[in-house]
Amino acid sequence: MSRLGIIAGGGALPAALAAADPDALCIAFAGAEVAVPEARIQRHRMEHLGALFSALRAAGVTRVVLAGAMSRPALDPAALDPVMTALAPRIMAAMQGGDDGLLRLVIAIFEEQGFAVTGAHDLLPDLTATPGLLTGPEPSDTARADIARARAILDALSPVDVGQGCVVASGLCLGVETLQGTDALLGFVAATPRHLRGRGGVLVKRPKLGQDLRVDMPAIGPATVQAAARAGLDGIAIAAGGVMLLDRPALLAAAEANGLFLLAEP
Amino acid sequence: MSRLGIIAGGGALPAALAAADPDALCIAFAGAEVAVPEARIQRHRMEHLGALFSALRAAGVTRVVLAGAMSRPALDPAALDPVMTALAPRIMAAMQGGDDGLLRLVIAIFEEQGFAVTGAHDLLPDLTATPGLLTGPEPSDTARADIARARAILDALSPVDVGQGCVVASGLCLGVETLQGTDALLGFVAATPRHLRGRGGVLVKRPKLGQDLRVDMPAIGPATVQAAARAGLDGIAIAAGGVMLLDRPALLAAAEANGLFLLAEP
Repeated sequence: MSRLGIIAGGGALPAALAAADPDALCIAFAGAEVAVPEARIQRHRMEHLGALFSALRAAGVTRVVLAGAMSRPALDPAALDPVMTALAPRIMAAMQGGDDGLLRLVIAIFEEQGFAVTGAHDLLPDLTATPGLLTGPEPSDTARADIARARAILDALSPVDVGQGCVVASGLCLGVETLQGTDALLGFVAATPRHLRGRGGVLVKRPKLGQDLRVDMPAIGPATVQAAARAGLDGIAIAAGGVMLLDRPALLAAAEANGLFLLAEP
Repeated sequence: MSRLGIIAGGGALPAALAAADPDALCIAFAGAEVAVPEARIQRHRMEHLGALFSALRAAGVTRVVLAGAMSRPALDPAALDPVMTALAPRIMAAMQGGDDGLLRLVIAIFEEQGFAVTGAHDLLPDLTATPGLLTGPEPSDTARADIARARAILDALSPVDVGQGCVVASGLCLGVETLQGTDALLGFVAATPRHLRGRGGVLVKRPKLGQDLRVDMPAIGPATVQAAARAGLDGIAIAAGGVMLLDRPALLAAAEANGLFLLAEP
């Protein structure tokens, strides 16, 4: 038996995973707010990772999925168990850097402990899109050209580890997503003086080349669509299989209500 | 005699060029606000480029400098002279695209008419900086690393014709300059929630690789420094010989008053 362990953070995703696999063991860290019913949750302290690994093994867990937002914890150094004491220097070092490095380290630690790490999208295929037009009008030639230009900009940025999103309108780049996230990018675009920009425009959202989608898949939700509409965009193009659709029915309804296309490309 | 023609737009630069070369012929388009004394200005309509070229030749002008901001004109099609009628299709096409294409076309048109096009920085060497620390404290190792990362990001973007500026703080990219300009970028950085970003940070401002510096040199001024200070940055690094310093005394004073370094790198 290959039992699944769900390391649950915030948001709706952990509950969806738990509902899809009634046999899964759900773990949450002390103090974390999770949407999974508390009766299904086994709580652990982050200072006691050794106890967590033992509990997973004792329960027959061989593969884990890390799902949902987790805040960077304040650790009590006096409370660390021996496993966590040994890991602490690597974790502290990774915390000085970007999220990418910390997430890669978390994956590596679970793998070193003998667990396979899987992605939520592998367990819930409907989380991502298959190629095609999901909703809205067929993109115009201008929109297609803007999508191609935004993809070229994101491709150029991938080697320097920047950019999961880019907005282009009539060939002009109106913004590149940085660590403030997609909503901040779209707010910046919405504030662009009208005389500077062409009409319409597109948001392209894709993982960086080489990004580990098991713990860090880009996502859009209904709020993204609303923000794109406020920014005057014609639509959103995402990577098929590479961007999570949060609350898909509401997301599609928001796109339809605002006349935005939602296109998934290989 | 190689007489200079100054095609003057807004801002202080045309007046500085005119003061430096009392023999220069100063041209402004009808309706444009320019800081050069009106008595020195010869006015032309943009619809009558043929008359402008003739006037330049009659005055012995062999080289021109395009200086200062010019707004995209609304042209009266009925008023075009024969030279402008012949050029109109190329100009109309370029106006659909970005500023770069339009500026390249304007240079090409002057050159086709037999004029050499020179850059303001070639006529006023003090407009740009020589390599070194212009003012402020020596950049820390962290600031040096942030400068290197911002340069790498700008280099990656050059092939896709985006980015004259980038902000990096403690290794994290906080923003890439798009067509909204440097002040908008710095306003975006200033609005970044504190918990997302590291301390300090740098603005790096450089021309794109292959950018034609004769008409489109990046610039910083006192307002740039003030905006960088409001964004919590430690300093600004520019390309020596490749970024204009507007109102240099006030710019250096603003950097000093805010404790920001201003570094010019090859």
